[in-house]
Amino acid sequence: MGYNIITISREYGSGGRNIGQLVAEKLGYDFYDNALVDKIAKESGFAEEIIKDAGEYATSGNSFLFSLSMSNLSEINMPSISYQIYAVQKKIITELAEKGRCVIVGRCADYILRERKDTLNVFISASMEFRKNRISDIYHEGGNKPEKMLRDKDKKRKTYYRYYTDNEWGMCHNYNLCLDSSLFGIEKCADIIADIAR
Amino acid sequence: MGYNIITISREYGSGGRNIGQLVAEKLGYDFYDNALVDKIAKESGFAEEIIKDAGEYATSGNSFLFSLSMSNLSEINMPSISYQIYAVQKKIITELAEKGRCVIVGRCADYILRERKDTLNVFISASMEFRKNRISDIYHEGGNKPEKMLRDKDKKRKTYYRYYTDNEWGMCHNYNLCLDSSLFGIEKCADIIADIAR
Repeated sequence: MGYNIITISREYGSGGRNIGQLVAEKLGYDFYDNALVDKIAKESGFAEEIIKDAGEYATSGNSFLFSLSMSNLSEINMPSISYQIYAVQKKIITELAEKGRCVIVGRCADYILRERKDTLNVFISASMEFRKNRISDIYHEGGNKPEKMLRDKDKKRKTYYRYYTDNEWGMCHNYNLCLDSSLFGIEKCADIIADIAR
Repeated sequence: MGYNIITISREYGSGGRNIGQLVAEKLGYDFYDNALVDKIAKESGFAEEIIKDAGEYATSGNSFLFSLSMSNLSEINMPSISYQIYAVQKKIITELAEKGRCVIVGRCADYILRERKDTLNVFISASMEFRKNRISDIYHEGGNKPEKMLRDKDKKRKTYYRYYTDNEWGMCHNYNLCLDSSLFGIEKCADIIADIAR
């Protein structure tokens, strides 16, 4: 059986986005990540940067957007901003999946498309060492506390996922295939996924 | 790179044990599961059945063995019974891994062998539907409440794993490769693992 849609969830710094790109190239599938954020921005009217933050950080205590989204707007029967953003994301992801074969990274796509039978849900994890080196070497991020930064990122993704799906981010049971990119390497992970998807 | 040791952790009813057997056959590796329990029984002097229970159910509230293991024996400086069993298991698993190429199912082998660089740690999950059918059709277990039985089993494995490893059972981050046997099927899971291990 072939899979028309491949969703990729990933720990920050694991190379999950790159793996997704490679898989899309190998299979000749469309690839959606930042392009998806752009599309959301255009449809919803929100500035791109705000949406990007809201997508990753639904419950950051310091976030203005989160405070706003949690405030009581029910008097005027208006859904919270973060939920509006999620609803737009959900709509777009559903449409993209209907449009044709593709790889979608992040944004709870695995959960949003759970009713489809032609979806392969992948999770990419990696050792803390691998992720620390990667964010430092490639993205020049993390400063002198890369581990703290990574733990914060994981926590935010976990919170976001739990908030919208009621499931636990990073639990094997929620995915069909999970790979450790620090053991196999980026290229080999892409090969494994592409072989299985064919 | 080849992997000399393959550890398999699994949700009850996912077919993880069968997958482990198939992988061992395909690769010509030794296979350890019940045979391991036997060996533990002989070395420790405990009856096989008691060890089997203790291995899976470290913190069952109704378990005599658990109550005993949690009672304060420190006056005579004697490790609790469940910890003694774990220590024997650990010793045996370490020795088996040194003896030669093998597949080991369950018993926190992934954690016990975490210092070895030639180990591939696999987790097998499956949908509730698949597991329910499997325990009912093959093992005639679960009666009219198969889902409750499976949730109890998961909870006990989770508790056991947490107790001895301080890690979370079933989290992608703890394994190198996780597969959903209800999507791929038993045979295909074994093929994927064997291909990667080669």
